[in-house]
Amino acid sequence: MPLFERMLVAGVGLIGASLGLAARRRSLVGEVVGYGRGEPNLKIALERGAVDRYSQSPAEAAREADLVVLAVPVRSLRAVAERILPSARRDAVVIDVGSVKATVVDAITPLVAPPGAFVGCHPVAGTEHSGAANALEDLFDGQLCILTPTSQTDARALERVRALWQGVGMRVETMSPAQHDRLLALVSHLPHAVAYALVAAIDGQRDASRDPLAYSGGGLRDTTRIAASHAEMWRDIFLDNRPEVLRAIDEFQAALGRIREMIERQEAQPLEAELDRVRGARARLKERRG
Amino acid sequence: MPLFERMLVAGVGLIGASLGLAARRRSLVGEVVGYGRGEPNLKIALERGAVDRYSQSPAEAAREADLVVLAVPVRSLRAVAERILPSARRDAVVIDVGSVKATVVDAITPLVAPPGAFVGCHPVAGTEHSGAANALEDLFDGQLCILTPTSQTDARALERVRALWQGVGMRVETMSPAQHDRLLALVSHLPHAVAYALVAAIDGQRDASRDPLAYSGGGLRDTTRIAASHAEMWRDIFLDNRPEVLRAIDEFQAALGRIREMIERQEAQPLEAELDRVRGARARLKERRG
Repeated sequence: MPLFERMLVAGVGLIGASLGLAARRRSLVGEVVGYGRGEPNLKIALERGAVDRYSQSPAEAAREADLVVLAVPVRSLRAVAERILPSARRDAVVIDVGSVKATVVDAITPLVAPPGAFVGCHPVAGTEHSGAANALEDLFDGQLCILTPTSQTDARALERVRALWQGVGMRVETMSPAQHDRLLALVSHLPHAVAYALVAAIDGQRDASRDPLAYSGGGLRDTTRIAASHAEMWRDIFLDNRPEVLRAIDEFQAALGRIREMIERQEAQPLEAELDRVRGARARLKERRG
Repeated sequence: MPLFERMLVAGVGLIGASLGLAARRRSLVGEVVGYGRGEPNLKIALERGAVDRYSQSPAEAAREADLVVLAVPVRSLRAVAERILPSARRDAVVIDVGSVKATVVDAITPLVAPPGAFVGCHPVAGTEHSGAANALEDLFDGQLCILTPTSQTDARALERVRALWQGVGMRVETMSPAQHDRLLALVSHLPHAVAYALVAAIDGQRDASRDPLAYSGGGLRDTTRIAASHAEMWRDIFLDNRPEVLRAIDEFQAALGRIREMIERQEAQPLEAELDRVRGARARLKERRG
């Protein structure tokens, strides 16, 4: 028996379409309906088997849905939820898939009719590609999904959502929206800000006679790889998770400041001890997320 | 006809032994003599064909050498030069291979008898391994060698040294010691300091319930790979190139501060423009050093 009878996927991009694909193939849901603005992408989703059908009408798409997946960019979430939710089933469970949680949970929870039926979700998965054309049935396999229930979240809705993500192969962990945003600010948002700043600083020293970036080796290339990420997407993440991103940047600046001070004061022994300690801590990094 | 009759390699580590190996195989020098403190490593260098013979006596090793390669750690350079140079030929050319240049050029130049016979060299090549056992004949092939002559450098010594590095396959560029140290501080030393600080900052937020490093994905792994580098070596590089490393850190902190400010003030448009500009600049990174 499927976990949900009718899953509406609002936004059939990489994540939404991959979830549709994986859920259909594994018979986790009775039917998948796609909703979106661009018909070409909806057609691709249909051809790829990510949805059983689609509609560009919110009322038609949402009719009788008992699971609503909000898979649009965080900045459009609220508007799409307001258009769609009135037509879904009154007892529908609602989830999102955004990479920032506190602002989303605060914005969407009041829009969901039955109290506690919204569950914030962050499937930590993706590729550098986007759109239904790049959807992958095994995108979620073995990856981490963070659920961010609050004290208001309905326990049964939470368990059904957990079963859905586990059904597509994910390891599920729960934490508060604030804990999620703090954690992701540190391990994902901060490294992106640092990589962007590193390229900016080096590029700022270019002059007519010499381009420092042309002298870079493997170290700089690795360190700044994520500075090639999509500018608009990262602008939104930095702004949506603003307080935690600022806090993480401040903590990083303090850590770099301590190393800087040891260099300035020529404290050879403490400097070596610190570098060695950090080297040991880095060994705790997972070799693969999973 | 070889470029030099007798090359003394003082310190047959990875760089010194690889240079001996490459120069002998290509008949760039008449004879290669090894000098060092550890006989086991000297024996390996002999067995591997990196030297024709070796000695642990400075006077014996240096006798009649017309090229002296100082390939010991930067901190030992001066002491080794003082022990060795009095026994070399009066017209010997002297080079080093260190990754910091201004302090080395200042320290070694006065020790070399014929004015201008010292040429600072930085062959930008290496592997994560060390010692004569890991020497590679093609270590320098296609890589960059930076020579740092000064106004006192003898033109003929410079050309002979250039021919040596080109002979082992390197692209040779010249710049002043100060320019070298400034450039390497930006593209190599700064990224290392940033990677160490990033791990330190994230590790600093670990508590009893959660280890943020355990949640890291590919982005953080790439960004901090060089934080696994050897602590003692990087302590020395940070301290030997102290003024330029401090300056590069300051420029980086200012660049990150500008991004931080745009986030804090929620300047969405300038932030996106800046991230997009940086993304474009990163495209100038060489895909391979070479």
